[in-house]
Amino acid sequence: MQKQWYELNTGIEMTASVVGKQEHEGPLGAFFDMYDETDSFGKKTWEQAESELQRRAFSTLLLKSGYREEDIDALLAGDLLNQCAASAYGLRFFGIPYFGLYGACSTSVEGLLLGSLLHSGKMVKRCATVSSSHNCSAEKQYRFPLEYGAQRTPTAQWTVTGAGAFLLGDKGKARIRRACPGIVIDMGINDPNNMGAAMAPAALDTLCRFFRGTDTKPSDYDKIFTGDLGAEGSRLLSDLITAEGFDLGDNYSDCGMLIYYNKAQDKHAGGSGCGCAASVTAAHLVPKVQSGEWKRILVVATGAMMSPTSVMQGESIPAVAHLVEIRYEEEH
Amino acid sequence: MQKQWYELNTGIEMTASVVGKQEHEGPLGAFFDMYDETDSFGKKTWEQAESELQRRAFSTLLLKSGYREEDIDALLAGDLLNQCAASAYGLRFFGIPYFGLYGACSTSVEGLLLGSLLHSGKMVKRCATVSSSHNCSAEKQYRFPLEYGAQRTPTAQWTVTGAGAFLLGDKGKARIRRACPGIVIDMGINDPNNMGAAMAPAALDTLCRFFRGTDTKPSDYDKIFTGDLGAEGSRLLSDLITAEGFDLGDNYSDCGMLIYYNKAQDKHAGGSGCGCAASVTAAHLVPKVQSGEWKRILVVATGAMMSPTSVMQGESIPAVAHLVEIRYEEEH
Repeated sequence: MQKQWYELNTGIEMTASVVGKQEHEGPLGAFFDMYDETDSFGKKTWEQAESELQRRAFSTLLLKSGYREEDIDALLAGDLLNQCAASAYGLRFFGIPYFGLYGACSTSVEGLLLGSLLHSGKMVKRCATVSSSHNCSAEKQYRFPLEYGAQRTPTAQWTVTGAGAFLLGDKGKARIRRACPGIVIDMGINDPNNMGAAMAPAALDTLCRFFRGTDTKPSDYDKIFTGDLGAEGSRLLSDLITAEGFDLGDNYSDCGMLIYYNKAQDKHAGGSGCGCAASVTAAHLVPKVQSGEWKRILVVATGAMMSPTSVMQGESIPAVAHLVEIRYEEEH
Repeated sequence: MQKQWYELNTGIEMTASVVGKQEHEGPLGAFFDMYDETDSFGKKTWEQAESELQRRAFSTLLLKSGYREEDIDALLAGDLLNQCAASAYGLRFFGIPYFGLYGACSTSVEGLLLGSLLHSGKMVKRCATVSSSHNCSAEKQYRFPLEYGAQRTPTAQWTVTGAGAFLLGDKGKARIRRACPGIVIDMGINDPNNMGAAMAPAALDTLCRFFRGTDTKPSDYDKIFTGDLGAEGSRLLSDLITAEGFDLGDNYSDCGMLIYYNKAQDKHAGGSGCGCAASVTAAHLVPKVQSGEWKRILVVATGAMMSPTSVMQGESIPAVAHLVEIRYEEEH
């Protein structure tokens, strides 16, 4: 029988996050480690700015944790840019074995999941994972150059300018104790301006497999977060999962719905992008578990795996959702 | 101290490979499981053709091995297309937990390496890795539409149309016994028509760390293969490594130099692409170890991590090289 979920015991020793101006002005603004008023992070192109986001997030992680490069056995990283260039360029300054990942907006949890599999399997003593997105590099690549001032549909989400980094190892009160990797799900949705609808069935699949496999239910968790389904996708997920016999109830939120004041900041259906779940999990979710305020949470990051070319060719959008269960535990 | 290399014990239970017309007409033509005379694999676009390469490679792997989808705990896959779309679209038909990878042309060995870490760490019982490239989708995306008939420089390599798939588990006489993950190396090369030169320093770094870490030397191995340094890069690597005190000697070859009759097929510096090391390793290298003809080989796949955008912005090309040691062992 296929392994559907994993029992793990990996500590999230430290997190770091770096965001742009609008994320800093959002409801979680005070929790991010660093932000840049200009979103350019001192660089001349948006692509270089995104690499710099990655570099700063990982540098901050090293600084905060007190570790040096040579203490880290592996670096797992990814982003949304073509050829995952933000990660390779941003992290080329560090002498650490490098594994490039691509999971679209699920990359942050893909990294947490693979990293904790490597650590819990005693293959590495300590590893780190970094992921990012930048609104301006993403708009340019996926939609239109910013200068066009293109209109956005009500279901459109706003790509977060942000990066999150996580240090995984033996220590830490916030511990990854279970994980459930996603299966690629394609329900035939082909509207790239409604990625929430494309990704909701993937979150549904992962959550149902996890609840059934572990014989748990939504109310067993203090909080359940999806990555960036946004307003549209999270409504869909809540409806779809009811038909499967689970009630997400009031414990459920979406990182894309937490990062902005959607109305006041004109963000339509909420935030999205690899940097969304990454920065919100690093700055807000893990710290609340570390402090013991939440004892047991699920984070399910979702990714829409289309490319601009596949969309232009009329293809539907495959999606994937990776899940980790993070628990508060006293250090032993 | 940072972990530089790993002791592992994972069997390559089965391999499968699918290639295009010109690869079939090359010196290894008879060894690939399947080829298509038209390179289109029955699809209407080159991108869909590449997804079909992935689907066929993995289907063939399942058929040859006798396993069913539900016997495979994880699928690790990647390619060169923007947003790694070939993998996600090609493998969405299989109900298997999916981890997307991006290591440019090093992806095949990145998959073997991560897969064998998951297996040797007893996290999965069995997993598979698939990677691909397609000459026509790659030319379109990285260089010019084929219809332009653009001229190629003498140092240019030819992106292989091919996919390789590997089944990792307990069994198999060809076993991954050691591995050394690559560090991102950027020596300032910025000519995208000479990727061999950009990637050779990464292969050098990985090989030197591995030889020194394991206290071995090139002559301890029956054969040493790089992924796709081509004529230019493999000459550079041989020179550079001599200065480090190692002599690769006659045991050294490059997958990019094996797949075509370079002169007769007008392939300039040789083959490249995720599908190069993947298909050559699946069809030629692993079977020679399985049969016992070679007892101990190294495969070092190299990846150039630039994007067309980073090249246009004048950036240099970061590269990475992942290594696995594959040994012949009687089944226990």
